[in-house]
Amino acid sequence: MSRVYNFSAGPSTIAEEVLQRAQDELLEWGKSGMSVMEMSHRGKDYVGIAEKAEADFREILGVPDNYKVLFVSGGATGQFAAIPMNLLRGKTSVNYVNTGIWSGKAISEAKKYAEVKIAASSKENGFKTIPARADWKIDPEAAYLHYTSNETINGVEFQEVPDAGGLPLVCDMSSNILSRPVDVSQFGLIYAGAQKNMGPAGIAVVIVRDDLMGQALPITPSIFDYKIQAENGSMLNTPPTYNWYLLGLVLEWVKQQGGLATIEEHNKAKAAKLYATIDASPFYANPVEPVYRSRMNVPFTLAKPELEKTFAAEAKAVGLVSLEGHRSVGGMRASIYNAMPAAGVDALIAFMNEFERKNG
Amino acid sequence: MSRVYNFSAGPSTIAEEVLQRAQDELLEWGKSGMSVMEMSHRGKDYVGIAEKAEADFREILGVPDNYKVLFVSGGATGQFAAIPMNLLRGKTSVNYVNTGIWSGKAISEAKKYAEVKIAASSKENGFKTIPARADWKIDPEAAYLHYTSNETINGVEFQEVPDAGGLPLVCDMSSNILSRPVDVSQFGLIYAGAQKNMGPAGIAVVIVRDDLMGQALPITPSIFDYKIQAENGSMLNTPPTYNWYLLGLVLEWVKQQGGLATIEEHNKAKAAKLYATIDASPFYANPVEPVYRSRMNVPFTLAKPELEKTFAAEAKAVGLVSLEGHRSVGGMRASIYNAMPAAGVDALIAFMNEFERKNG
Repeated sequence: MSRVYNFSAGPSTIAEEVLQRAQDELLEWGKSGMSVMEMSHRGKDYVGIAEKAEADFREILGVPDNYKVLFVSGGATGQFAAIPMNLLRGKTSVNYVNTGIWSGKAISEAKKYAEVKIAASSKENGFKTIPARADWKIDPEAAYLHYTSNETINGVEFQEVPDAGGLPLVCDMSSNILSRPVDVSQFGLIYAGAQKNMGPAGIAVVIVRDDLMGQALPITPSIFDYKIQAENGSMLNTPPTYNWYLLGLVLEWVKQQGGLATIEEHNKAKAAKLYATIDASPFYANPVEPVYRSRMNVPFTLAKPELEKTFAAEAKAVGLVSLEGHRSVGGMRASIYNAMPAAGVDALIAFMNEFERKNG
Repeated sequence: MSRVYNFSAGPSTIAEEVLQRAQDELLEWGKSGMSVMEMSHRGKDYVGIAEKAEADFREILGVPDNYKVLFVSGGATGQFAAIPMNLLRGKTSVNYVNTGIWSGKAISEAKKYAEVKIAASSKENGFKTIPARADWKIDPEAAYLHYTSNETINGVEFQEVPDAGGLPLVCDMSSNILSRPVDVSQFGLIYAGAQKNMGPAGIAVVIVRDDLMGQALPITPSIFDYKIQAENGSMLNTPPTYNWYLLGLVLEWVKQQGGLATIEEHNKAKAAKLYATIDASPFYANPVEPVYRSRMNVPFTLAKPELEKTFAAEAKAVGLVSLEGHRSVGGMRASIYNAMPAAGVDALIAFMNEFERKNG
């Protein structure tokens, strides 16, 4: 077997130790006589697995007691609808910050349920920055303020938690959750699909403050009703049990790495090396304002765009895969989530330097 | 390793060959250098896996060309809301047949979006039968007729597809899909969570006739909009990629077994033996009218209910697990889905006979 370095934006690379553990346990978990994926979600073994994952998640992120952590089917796209359904609480408008394609998708979906006010947008400049907080226009009568902490396609990331002007702050943290410490108490709600830093696709985590639940719109599907899910321990219906288990294995790995402070240092170092390579070269370019560059997703262009396919193919030949940019923007992109080892970034940098030497 | 016989109602037992294959491929699929769970859902390898699963599913069930097959996150409970959202098509009422606890859940959820008319119900008699078709009262102005082909908790199963009186027929087939051949052309829509006969929880399949799509209510979340999902090949958002792959492995196994006609014969034989054991004994009882007894879920009671815990514990000690009845009804229950081998049923029967000999 020869594992590649996988720079996919999501689903994305998973630590080999996690996969090894999943493989070892696949036919039998503990002394249960069965695979985790065969277990009743009401049985003692499975409930233990699920509860351990929640406890580890709370510990790693330091989730305060007045927040519920929900494990739900699907990913962020479902939550784009669930959030206004749950959080309008008698209000009619919501504030959204538009910093990229994922913000835009959240906005489109929210418009089905509420009047969406754009508090700030970097669309005019091609999503290469984040508008200064002082310039945001927040409707104080709105139900909440929503932003996307990292944009995978444009490679733009908030480096600080923005002031929500007294409103509940709602964040799509799908692509940078667990990549750095975060003060959960600054948020009303955080949500994230698993498939970047938390394991395979098919499950999302919602961290929601207790006082924001219980006023879902009457048209809210039960599986989207946070209060109902909280009352049922995320088991109103059969949860995606195996995905939850795998997410739990990733959480154990995060703890073994030393937690979020250590992981943040690794992520900073990986990103710094890669951006330095890009900036030092006339052959590569990244358009994002440096202070808002993403540590997770590094898009870059070649001085000779006609070589993009060659770049991807030659990279693949040496075990560096999924470097194509998103189909909507083109170019190249290296996603370097938690599970991408420094050695993978080093190998990419070496390849980039060599490619430039041959083609620059 | 010693695998048990797992009689859980869902998530439930999976064929050992399927698990073995998943284990073999867990760290690397083919020559891809990565696990399936790490693959981009837009990449060639993963698209091939997904398309093969759909093709196999269509072949196994003989799905006509004018039906789409969607692979969506979650399970039946999400679809309980999605179905009226998509299928009302300007109508205001819907017909539901109430034959058990799952029918009841579908009805409760549909009431959020439509006037629900109960075409027939066996609630009064404790869900021990299915009301004769001649007695059903169907509102011809309603959008569709919904029924649940198998009730896992009460152990009641339709043996024929009911006449829908000219309306689109909608069926929750979660717990008996792929257990017998079915003529899809008799239905407007069939849906099923995977976690009984199709693999792990977290993914559902929706088979929907083309003409029923495209008129979803404006409040329909995008992930629930069948037309949008169909136009995007079930990849509007990141699908539960690993669950879809595992579902595909189960489908390959179904084909290797000889397809649905062969599987139906096995299922008939397993169920017949178990019900014969129950009926031949004064110690065990099943209350369901024989013609409507489920081939998938066999609930039974002991003449001495105080021995239920002993029964479950002693069964577990000999490798027969998850025989407790649903918490809402008590008693015992053996779920004998496709992947339960005849040897498992034989072992259960031997245990039941011995338990009766000692305690009867």
